[in-house]
Amino acid sequence: MTTSEVISELAKQLPASAILTDPAITDSYRRDWAKDPDAGHPLAVVRARSTNDVQAVMRWASRHSIPVVPRGAGSGLSGGATAVNEGIVLSTELMRDITIDPTTRIAVVQPGLLNAEVKKAAAAEGLWYPPDPSSFEICSIGGNAATNAGGLCCVKYGVTTDYVLGLQVVLADGTAVRLGGPRVKDVAGLSLTKLFVGSEGTLGVITEITLRLLPPQQPASTVVAGFHSLSDAVGAILEITKVMRPAMLEFMDGTAINAVEDAVKMGLDRSAQALLIAQSDSPGADRSREANFMAAAFTQHNATEVFVTDDEAEGAAFTAARRFAIPAVERLGTLLLEDVGVPIPALPQLLEGIQKIAQDRGVLVAVIAHAGDGNTHPLIVHNPEDHDEARRANVAFGEIMDLAISLGGTITGEHGVGRLKKAWLPGQVGEDVMVLTRKIKDALDPAGILNPGAMT
Amino acid sequence: MTTSEVISELAKQLPASAILTDPAITDSYRRDWAKDPDAGHPLAVVRARSTNDVQAVMRWASRHSIPVVPRGAGSGLSGGATAVNEGIVLSTELMRDITIDPTTRIAVVQPGLLNAEVKKAAAAEGLWYPPDPSSFEICSIGGNAATNAGGLCCVKYGVTTDYVLGLQVVLADGTAVRLGGPRVKDVAGLSLTKLFVGSEGTLGVITEITLRLLPPQQPASTVVAGFHSLSDAVGAILEITKVMRPAMLEFMDGTAINAVEDAVKMGLDRSAQALLIAQSDSPGADRSREANFMAAAFTQHNATEVFVTDDEAEGAAFTAARRFAIPAVERLGTLLLEDVGVPIPALPQLLEGIQKIAQDRGVLVAVIAHAGDGNTHPLIVHNPEDHDEARRANVAFGEIMDLAISLGGTITGEHGVGRLKKAWLPGQVGEDVMVLTRKIKDALDPAGILNPGAMT
Ligand SMILES: Cc1cc2nc3c(=O)[nH]c(=O)nc-3n(C[C@H](O)[C@H](O)[C@H](O)COP(=O)(O)OP(=O)(O)OC[C@H]3O[C@@H](n4cnc5c(N)ncnc54)[C@H](O)[C@@H]3O)c2cc1C
Ligand SMILES: Cc1cc2nc3c(=O)[nH]c(=O)nc-3n(C[C@H](O)[C@H](O)[C@H](O)COP(=O)(O)OP(=O)(O)OC[C@H]3O[C@@H](n4cnc5c(N)ncnc54)[C@H](O)[C@@H]3O)c2cc1C
Repeated sequence: MTTSEVISELAKQLPASAILTDPAITDSYRRDWAKDPDAGHPLAVVRARSTNDVQAVMRWASRHSIPVVPRGAGSGLSGGATAVNEGIVLSTELMRDITIDPTTRIAVVQPGLLNAEVKKAAAAEGLWYPPDPSSFEICSIGGNAATNAGGLCCVKYGVTTDYVLGLQVVLADGTAVRLGGPRVKDVAGLSLTKLFVGSEGTLGVITEITLRLLPPQQPASTVVAGFHSLSDAVGAILEITKVMRPAMLEFMDGTAINAVEDAVKMGLDRSAQALLIAQSDSPGADRSREANFMAAAFTQHNATEVFVTDDEAEGAAFTAARRFAIPAVERLGTLLLEDVGVPIPALPQLLEGIQKIAQDRGVLVAVIAHAGDGNTHPLIVHNPEDHDEARRANVAFGEIMDLAISLGGTITGEHGVGRLKKAWLPGQVGEDVMVLTRKIKDALDPAGILNPGAMT
Repeated sequence: MTTSEVISELAKQLPASAILTDPAITDSYRRDWAKDPDAGHPLAVVRARSTNDVQAVMRWASRHSIPVVPRGAGSGLSGGATAVNEGIVLSTELMRDITIDPTTRIAVVQPGLLNAEVKKAAAAEGLWYPPDPSSFEICSIGGNAATNAGGLCCVKYGVTTDYVLGLQVVLADGTAVRLGGPRVKDVAGLSLTKLFVGSEGTLGVITEITLRLLPPQQPASTVVAGFHSLSDAVGAILEITKVMRPAMLEFMDGTAINAVEDAVKMGLDRSAQALLIAQSDSPGADRSREANFMAAAFTQHNATEVFVTDDEAEGAAFTAARRFAIPAVERLGTLLLEDVGVPIPALPQLLEGIQKIAQDRGVLVAVIAHAGDGNTHPLIVHNPEDHDEARRANVAFGEIMDLAISLGGTITGEHGVGRLKKAWLPGQVGEDVMVLTRKIKDALDPAGILNPGAMT
């Protein structure tokens, strides 16, 4: 069979216009946000509209051993949705249904809906879907489940897996299975729902997600402080997380502060080495107790200035500034985005080590972090046209992961392994865990057609 | 090789007195709390003292294809730790180390420590380990991880898996792997930690657990109410869970109320069809706001009497009464203990259906429940000497699970599948999920030596 015969065999089983092959169109599906320069050229992009469509694709792909790269909204930062040659990209962007049961606080969602749309639909019922990746307006809920996405509020409210009660998943051979369901507690059988969350499209294609929702979040107080020393800032973080659970505890280093200030002019202290943005959403009077406690911890650890506000709009401006840090630093050059995490006490060593690597390699690295859970995003700024600089940036990228591993940390706290960090995974988890991983991968996808090259 | 040669081969690799073969002693290791009358006679009981010991056992068991039943404290209610003929029971009861890092709020625990001992060690550092199965004084933390145990506070604070950051696990072939670790956020690789939590000893033996701890729980207010109608009680539950997250929301039916009252004489309303015990541990003044809201919801749904208290000791007495329900009902006869769960709106149908089954089968069924998450424990009272009654009790046991499945529920919310509920698992999850389950089981334990007959 020729390639076009193979494609038309698939076309017969899908609704009209489900398959895109015009390179002018498919080109925009070749890369995720990591913009891998080595992205492949897919045979086609398939836009599924239903679980049935996904099953048809997987049966066909199994029959012909065709690699399938599942794709949500393409906001991934690890090359997990990078297209591969001779494969197809399977997009869920047209699968956008949602139903919410306000009585049981449960939503059943198709994968293509954006995180922000899920939040909005929940809010319309007076409910709250907590996970809030900074990319919430441009990432899909399916991608969130596939990467076990985190965000700003997860220091108190947990990550995506904590909200996924059930999944419908299409396996490599086209079988559709329902795992878990609308039951808050359920231990019947292996924890398969949890296994598929965070599996980055390597074990199956998620076609439906059952989510637990919460009552609405209470209003938050925001506390912001600048520091001249990193270790002071980390001392303050530990002082807080040791005894309480802030609703947010974010960090920006000097470079990030200046990039944000250049862009949004909020009056941030440009001379600070660290800015911490914390929130409490504790109910009633406890909110100001917590906010005051955090402000005192900041002061005690030599904050240059401490700002406390109950005003939601003022607080939101700081959160937005923090969320805007990635685009702001992006104005300085192309970014290699890291996602390393360490136990909080090791943060000063990590941050100092990163600056040393930046110096040694002659590249600029800005650091933002979900500091309350030790998850940092070093942003390596470089010019991809300057081949030597690009090479040095890549060396630094690996060295920062090695450093995190040596500090008992992780190469990825929330973005996933994808293709870009795969070479470092064995260094973190060890060869025996890789063997275990491959046993599961081989058992579920013996031909290796699901997102080959990613993670496993 | 004779059996005793095989055993002495193992003995050479273990500390003295690790292996017990005297039937007078090993007999007490043949059954868990489910007291399966068909429990096998193990070759030996091995009490491991270290991960190395467990590795030696698994290497030896692999070599000789000897079944291994991992055992914590034997408080399981599903026959998960029932001994099998020609196999060994591998007890973790002597593995009892714990270290706590109060700065990062993380505990590293060996599996043999009891849940209550973990709680106590955490409390000594001013911290809190939330999961609180009613059996907390007699179950091990390893058993909790292996069954993903729930409890009373999990309606607000989640179940065991929500606190497990990392595991050390010995696989079927004796390889020891470390999964996850002391990192609150970590998505490097498949979610293997989560897969092993709740795997009931069928995929590996847990030899170390890394737990996330919380700052101490705030004082709680307790609200207790009696109802003459089940649907009123369920109406009140939904009124509450729709908009808030109580720290506890427990249920006892009339039979359970009377059994408890017989035993502890608290002055519970013996004429009530349902008793609800709720708590709020919200900080500051919000606690009484929540308690009053719950009291009002009870009153509005025709509670016969509503009692609210801020007194911790009074509240604890009600919690203890609820925890005491199983032993209290046990005074009426031997129990077959169910663990079925349904979406909360289906609770009246479940409870009425259970009473119909009890009537049809001529057995007494008392029901207690973690009502806030729809997880019920029908207790089927019977006399095992009366063979016909025992048979009818077993029929009812299956019918109640079938009923839960037909209502979109689960056969087990927290106790696990074990051996007793295994026949119902395919009915809940479907044949395709069983195939998927067996693929994973076969990949990780090809000879099927890990807890054969349980769950998978
Ligand atoms: C500016 C910016 C900020 C960000 N901030 C955060 C943050 O705070 N926290 C965070 O966690 N992430 C963050 N991200 C990363 C990214 O948004 C998340 O990883 C997100 O979950 C990806 O969703 P997506 O729909 O874009 O997935 P994609 O990029 O399309 O895919 C991501 C991975 O999931 C797989 N996948 C997608 N859909 C499915 C499916 N239905 N079934 C199976 N596999 C599937 C893909 O194969 C790929 O491996 C950020 C990204 C950007 C650009
Ligand atoms: C009165 C009473 C009340 C209860 N209330 C609750 C409750 O509220 N919530 C709840 O969830 N449960 C409850 N239970 C059930 C039971 O206590 C839990 O299932 C508990 O987690 C079992 O722990 P254990 O150490 O006794 O495990 P065991 O009974 O010894 O074993 C349970 C299962 O785990 C496996 N296992 C044990 N240790 C390991 C290990 N180290 N590695 C691998 N596998 C292992 C065993 O093979 C078996 O399959 C109750 C039991 C009783 C008797």
